[in-house]
Amino acid sequence: MSPGTPSLLDRLSLNQQTVRQWSLPELADGCARAGVRGVGLWRAPVQQYGVAAAARLVRDAGLRVTSLCRGGFFTAVDPMERAAALDDNRAALDEAAALGTDTLVLVSGGLPPGSRDLRGARERIADALAELAPYAAERDVRLALEPLHPMYAADRCVVSTLAQALDLAERFPAGRVGVVVDTYHLWWDDTVGAQIGRAGGSGGARGTDGPGGAAGSRIAAFQLADWVTPLPEGVLLGRGQLGDGSVDLRWFRERVEAAGYRGPVEVEIFNPALWARDGTEVLAETVRRFLAHVG
Amino acid sequence: MSPGTPSLLDRLSLNQQTVRQWSLPELADGCARAGVRGVGLWRAPVQQYGVAAAARLVRDAGLRVTSLCRGGFFTAVDPMERAAALDDNRAALDEAAALGTDTLVLVSGGLPPGSRDLRGARERIADALAELAPYAAERDVRLALEPLHPMYAADRCVVSTLAQALDLAERFPAGRVGVVVDTYHLWWDDTVGAQIGRAGGSGGARGTDGPGGAAGSRIAAFQLADWVTPLPEGVLLGRGQLGDGSVDLRWFRERVEAAGYRGPVEVEIFNPALWARDGTEVLAETVRRFLAHVG
Repeated sequence: MSPGTPSLLDRLSLNQQTVRQWSLPELADGCARAGVRGVGLWRAPVQQYGVAAAARLVRDAGLRVTSLCRGGFFTAVDPMERAAALDDNRAALDEAAALGTDTLVLVSGGLPPGSRDLRGARERIADALAELAPYAAERDVRLALEPLHPMYAADRCVVSTLAQALDLAERFPAGRVGVVVDTYHLWWDDTVGAQIGRAGGSGGARGTDGPGGAAGSRIAAFQLADWVTPLPEGVLLGRGQLGDGSVDLRWFRERVEAAGYRGPVEVEIFNPALWARDGTEVLAETVRRFLAHVG
Repeated sequence: MSPGTPSLLDRLSLNQQTVRQWSLPELADGCARAGVRGVGLWRAPVQQYGVAAAARLVRDAGLRVTSLCRGGFFTAVDPMERAAALDDNRAALDEAAALGTDTLVLVSGGLPPGSRDLRGARERIADALAELAPYAAERDVRLALEPLHPMYAADRCVVSTLAQALDLAERFPAGRVGVVVDTYHLWWDDTVGAQIGRAGGSGGARGTDGPGGAAGSRIAAFQLADWVTPLPEGVLLGRGQLGDGSVDLRWFRERVEAAGYRGPVEVEIFNPALWARDGTEVLAETVRRFLAHVG
């Protein structure tokens, strides 16, 4: 293996939501012991631990922070709410920079109460990206727009497909605004292969040494979870362990690699059944599943 | 109002699932009293009552059966299961013809257990349509492929967008295979307006006096429900009364009419809160909401 091409296992990153039962020190220790070299972090537990302390903790454990979740929620119409959301996103960009990650994941926001205007909400996302892009650029953090499954369109994210995310991202330089390819959200879409190809297209502003590897790639992050049914009430916590569901995970990995992506492969599973188990066991299982179903 | 252009209220059809608390005689009586002229029926209650008796009942009440739900479930790989599904669909076509409706709604089926092959499942749907189309033609019933929300892709219907449904339907004459435009399933999709236009395109086999009015229109049925959150466990029974949710129902009505559709407008809401109430009240509320949010 040449130094420029890390093995797939070296690219594995554990999103901390997968092992929500773990504190940050447990996460850092558990990953280091398991040989997992990347972690995806969330703002709330990082803030609770202290941003600087969390940055030191993961750095001392030899871990790379592959993404910070999450900014976004850009769709408010009310000017005060909107200003507060932008302020909060600037704080998120500061936190991302402090943690040493180049990727802030954005969940765009749903429809404001009483609104049925999807198009208007999507335009407000573009406006917010335009406001935040210079601030992100100063911190060398990329805004990573995540399309969420269409079942979240009303209350969480009006960006439902990779095509929609790219339509928004492409208004900006590739180095400033990218997209998240998350198998859980996108697996059902028969156009997703073509859109991954579109996301990998060259011509953007980021150099070949940026995340993802390819010049101009819009793929800022690649996340894995499987789709299992029945969905639980509220449909937030029903993601499946790799291999337990309907998603052809290997196909996705091959598609993003064909599009030039060589960045982290982050496992992000929201599932109370995993949280009820021993974190070390869950991580060991996740690594096994990753090798069996993704590698 | 000229005889050729029925008012919107004349086009209202009540799908019997909206008032599941009603028996078939209650449904026929309730609709006749409320001035509702169409009903959408489901196979199980019709079979239980007796197909011929149900046909007589609704005819005597002056009602038109605007659709029969449902055939489909075409995605099995096992030859025995597949043959049984086709037999069952032939029975459904016989029942549709007996009820005097020209529209059999098809829910295509999900992934077979253990499968991750969406493309293969979609091809098996095309094969089933090819097998059933001549049988449907003999009975003058149109196969109406319904795209279901992507949250059902694994366990219920691998056809998740209007574009996918049209890709399948367009392999056949427009008079033989159409599509269902259901607001609940399609509202989130920013390409749905363009796809409704595509569905209304001329050039098909059905004449101007067929359902939908426009020569060659693929729009076999137009169904309404609103999108409300949080979704319940299993996500089957969480549809909203018209006006309670995120869907711009009037926009959809205008789009299908711009595409040439002048057929029934069927309200199909699966919601236990509606079933717990008096059916007459629910129907009166539905008519009021229909006029306020669709008309």
